[in-house]
Amino acid sequence: VGLIGGSFALSLRAAGKVKHIVGVGRGSVNLAQALKLRVIDEAAHVPAAAVKGADMVFLATHAGQVPGIMARIAPALERSCIVTDAGSTKQDVERHAREHLASHLECFVPAHPVAGAEKSGVEAARADLFQNKNVVVTPLPETSSTALQQVEVLWQACGARLHTLTPARHDEIFSAVSHLPHVLAYAMVDQIAGHPEADLLFKFAASGFRDFTRIASSSPEMWKDICLANRAALLQELHAYQALLAKIARFLEHANAAEIEALFQRAQAARSRWIESNQ
Amino acid sequence: VGLIGGSFALSLRAAGKVKHIVGVGRGSVNLAQALKLRVIDEAAHVPAAAVKGADMVFLATHAGQVPGIMARIAPALERSCIVTDAGSTKQDVERHAREHLASHLECFVPAHPVAGAEKSGVEAARADLFQNKNVVVTPLPETSSTALQQVEVLWQACGARLHTLTPARHDEIFSAVSHLPHVLAYAMVDQIAGHPEADLLFKFAASGFRDFTRIASSSPEMWKDICLANRAALLQELHAYQALLAKIARFLEHANAAEIEALFQRAQAARSRWIESNQ
Repeated sequence: VGLIGGSFALSLRAAGKVKHIVGVGRGSVNLAQALKLRVIDEAAHVPAAAVKGADMVFLATHAGQVPGIMARIAPALERSCIVTDAGSTKQDVERHAREHLASHLECFVPAHPVAGAEKSGVEAARADLFQNKNVVVTPLPETSSTALQQVEVLWQACGARLHTLTPARHDEIFSAVSHLPHVLAYAMVDQIAGHPEADLLFKFAASGFRDFTRIASSSPEMWKDICLANRAALLQELHAYQALLAKIARFLEHANAAEIEALFQRAQAARSRWIESNQ
Repeated sequence: VGLIGGSFALSLRAAGKVKHIVGVGRGSVNLAQALKLRVIDEAAHVPAAAVKGADMVFLATHAGQVPGIMARIAPALERSCIVTDAGSTKQDVERHAREHLASHLECFVPAHPVAGAEKSGVEAARADLFQNKNVVVTPLPETSSTALQQVEVLWQACGARLHTLTPARHDEIFSAVSHLPHVLAYAMVDQIAGHPEADLLFKFAASGFRDFTRIASSSPEMWKDICLANRAALLQELHAYQALLAKIARFLEHANAAEIEALFQRAQAARSRWIESNQ
């Protein structure tokens, strides 16, 4: 019951799509807070007990926790209970589902709401978090159209824009536009922090640095899990980026003004087109 | 008369520190706009003519333009005219000043207002741009204390916080906290833009990507100049970053969860301390 799970609960309640919400979590303080904020109606610590009688289960936890939770809820799921998730990586979720929810795949709808934030915990949850945000569903061949539709209806009720991709395609795309930038931002901050005179450097870091590194304030545990869950695609993007930096280093070594400006120009123009198309 | 020059003019006028401001520029449209917005009192295209009779000259132009402008204004400067600049790199400015303003070094005060923005042009100029912003002065051994003081008084009138560094020290620090992040952001956008399916990737890029790449909307000409002007220090930081990425790639290849999380953890903690100390 963190940012994503809490916001899904608040959105669906605001849309009148839910009756009774059971929140499951590791931390008692967070669950008590979720009850107090009326994000959930009931708190539970044992996943298997919590899913008893549920019409739908929403797995909104770190990638590293998913297989264990799937294994624990599998025997307790109602036959027609829809299971969906919010993971930032989808091939690993498919793999885990095939292992732990093998007899429940018809009702399993992998999904990824693209609405992260560097904040976490239920206190960051908001009923409008998914408004106009992308949600990617990556149905398995076994996923029934009924289950898919039910999950899509709920995300639409949250104001999200739905897209469908295969798990592999999803992971390629997000390794490039999300996972790699997170790695680069963490690395940038770590490089400054590791300088012998880190304090002096941070003193002169300004708003450009602040925005560039905002995502380095994201949860280290969560992002370690994401990077490992999607490491094949991430490594491919990282290697491409390393090759690009090596090329830029050569341009700098040879003071190749034309190539440097051309690259900056291309990037600036591409970003402008993207920003404009988003408005 | 762009973001920096225009904002300096507006701030000083608001503080009652100037009488008559002559704006010099390459573009007639921008200068006409500067006159219309009353940022300047008079527009000029020929630097040597513009500095005649001036008490102070503020060079707020791309690093690549600085030597040419210094050479053109040198013969026309009044004997006691203070010359200062706003360059993001300072060793190259010192080099250019030694070459082109050799007989005027006593009155030369290199400075760097740390208040960039991805916007440019006089229309982006604001009287409060430098409020609570850092301004680094890097006086040369020849710079007179009178000249230094006069420049400091003006920046204080703009609400800036003054710091003093040597040119070399300045360039090391800013290569790490500013120039490298710009290169990384341009490279990231260029990598996505160069993908065979760039449109699909951009479609799923979200707010994390937007903030991470905001500085890639900065002026390509200006940043090409900065990167070249400071390429020795920048290459050193870039090589350190390449080594760090190689280390991260190895962690990923070996699925070394502990090392990945430790690095992310360190970065997140360092960024939190920095953000808190800035508030």
